[in-house]
Amino acid sequence: MINKLIEKIKKLNAPVVVGLDPMLSYIPEHIQKKAFAEYGETLEGAAEAIWQFNKEIIDKICDLIPAVKPQIAMYEQFGIEGLKTFKKTVDYARSKDLVVIGDIKRGDIGSTSSAYAAGHVGKVQVGNKCYMPFEEDFITVNPYFGTDGVKPFIDVCKETGKGIFLLVKTSNPSSGEFQDRLIDGKPLYEIVGEKVAEWGSAYMGNSYSYVGAVVGATYPEMGKTLRKIMPKTYILVPGYGAQGGKAADLAPYFNEDGLGAIVNSSRGIIAAYKQDRYAGFGEENFGDASRQAVLDMIEDITTAVGLK
Amino acid sequence: MINKLIEKIKKLNAPVVVGLDPMLSYIPEHIQKKAFAEYGETLEGAAEAIWQFNKEIIDKICDLIPAVKPQIAMYEQFGIEGLKTFKKTVDYARSKDLVVIGDIKRGDIGSTSSAYAAGHVGKVQVGNKCYMPFEEDFITVNPYFGTDGVKPFIDVCKETGKGIFLLVKTSNPSSGEFQDRLIDGKPLYEIVGEKVAEWGSAYMGNSYSYVGAVVGATYPEMGKTLRKIMPKTYILVPGYGAQGGKAADLAPYFNEDGLGAIVNSSRGIIAAYKQDRYAGFGEENFGDASRQAVLDMIEDITTAVGLK
Repeated sequence: MINKLIEKIKKLNAPVVVGLDPMLSYIPEHIQKKAFAEYGETLEGAAEAIWQFNKEIIDKICDLIPAVKPQIAMYEQFGIEGLKTFKKTVDYARSKDLVVIGDIKRGDIGSTSSAYAAGHVGKVQVGNKCYMPFEEDFITVNPYFGTDGVKPFIDVCKETGKGIFLLVKTSNPSSGEFQDRLIDGKPLYEIVGEKVAEWGSAYMGNSYSYVGAVVGATYPEMGKTLRKIMPKTYILVPGYGAQGGKAADLAPYFNEDGLGAIVNSSRGIIAAYKQDRYAGFGEENFGDASRQAVLDMIEDITTAVGLK
Repeated sequence: MINKLIEKIKKLNAPVVVGLDPMLSYIPEHIQKKAFAEYGETLEGAAEAIWQFNKEIIDKICDLIPAVKPQIAMYEQFGIEGLKTFKKTVDYARSKDLVVIGDIKRGDIGSTSSAYAAGHVGKVQVGNKCYMPFEEDFITVNPYFGTDGVKPFIDVCKETGKGIFLLVKTSNPSSGEFQDRLIDGKPLYEIVGEKVAEWGSAYMGNSYSYVGAVVGATYPEMGKTLRKIMPKTYILVPGYGAQGGKAADLAPYFNEDGLGAIVNSSRGIIAAYKQDRYAGFGEENFGDASRQAVLDMIEDITTAVGLK
């Protein structure tokens, strides 16, 4: 799957992933009204509104980008109905040949990690039958448990040809509280980065590992160091746009081959129609606003990192 | 909710929680057969088998223990159908007046943590209506993001009177890889423990905080240190029984008031009928085997920590 992701990034010249992290407040009124008219102001109604919103955005941007990254929390908050929409979104995006990165940030002790892995990037056995319940292509994983919490994810991915992105340095303001603390003179995120490189070396694609890393756009100096520590690791970079990360800061996340990083934007794309810059499209045409925002993001990033 | 948990622990003299972490392989054949006959060898069939298994165990042990801890991964691995059984299990356990600790180990940046919190221990707004989608009483949370990833969980809990347990030192063999690394001479788990105490001090019940900690039974020396660092923090202790933690090692997790810790066993209880010790009950009577295993666990722990 890392090979497919890289091929698509190259073909589209778009090291970009769009985060499908819908809040109800992002969803245009006409979509909410229609969903509530059909299902009432219920969890089912909310889930339907999110589904219609996602579908329109995917339709409008799927030819421009290699991947989408649905954030499961935004679906899980609406319970079972929300999770049905998560699943429908994953399936629909895959049917449009998008690589789907499930942003689920799971992680636990071994046997429990195996269960998460089976449900999201693997298979479960029921009697003599096998099922792939959520079937994302990649998922994000929390490394706090160490090797025996992480390895089950990698083992499952090896069977299905799928991959993971491990949290190394997150984009939020207080990420440094634990992640930046010095251990033998080295910050924790570097120690985690070294482990990610080690784990990943045992599961390589053609040029990069199936085991990637998450490093926030908001910490470019750390991105530079981590790029060196993990030369064969694809870096998923959240924090561009709404969280304050600038395109000019993204160059250090890339390797000299122009590869090695994929930059995420969520709100900046899916709620583009709410920005002054794209207000001209009008709320009804929110999908067109998102399309233009994707085009602008690709232009912004490829220019800044010298891919044009 | 921490007050209710403590009252129940005192009343039953049982600082014990049972982990409802069903694997299909734990479920007696007659239950699997019946479920597959009705729903086929499908995700729905697996979910039905798990539900019938859980229901019987809850019925047989609910008068003995204060709380259950369903591990969501074991349900999530069966997709939407599995998660429906998770929800049914939470609801059923609460209807039996059990405190429900959702072992979900979520954690993310602020706005995303808010969404997880809303879905599991809070409320979501849909139009003019409010819903509590999963409605556990406590959930487990991963602290890797630092304060702004954790605080949204606490803020939501404050509104609903619910609580969290933060991972501090996990029970698995490689937990030390990151958690034990020394920072200014102190291991990371102590630094996290200090933060947990600080976060918890702003959200106190009568004698303990609504913000608890997870510290594995497999590391009693560390449990002793963490008990001192977090005197007002309830400690959820996994790793007893199947993972190797012994009752004799549990004393340091408790305070002098005989409170402060609640010990989890999962496999050791729910799959008790598979142990030689309880084989006499027979597979058909797996619930009775679980009941006896709970009685033995309570006896084992209360004796070892001097609560008798």
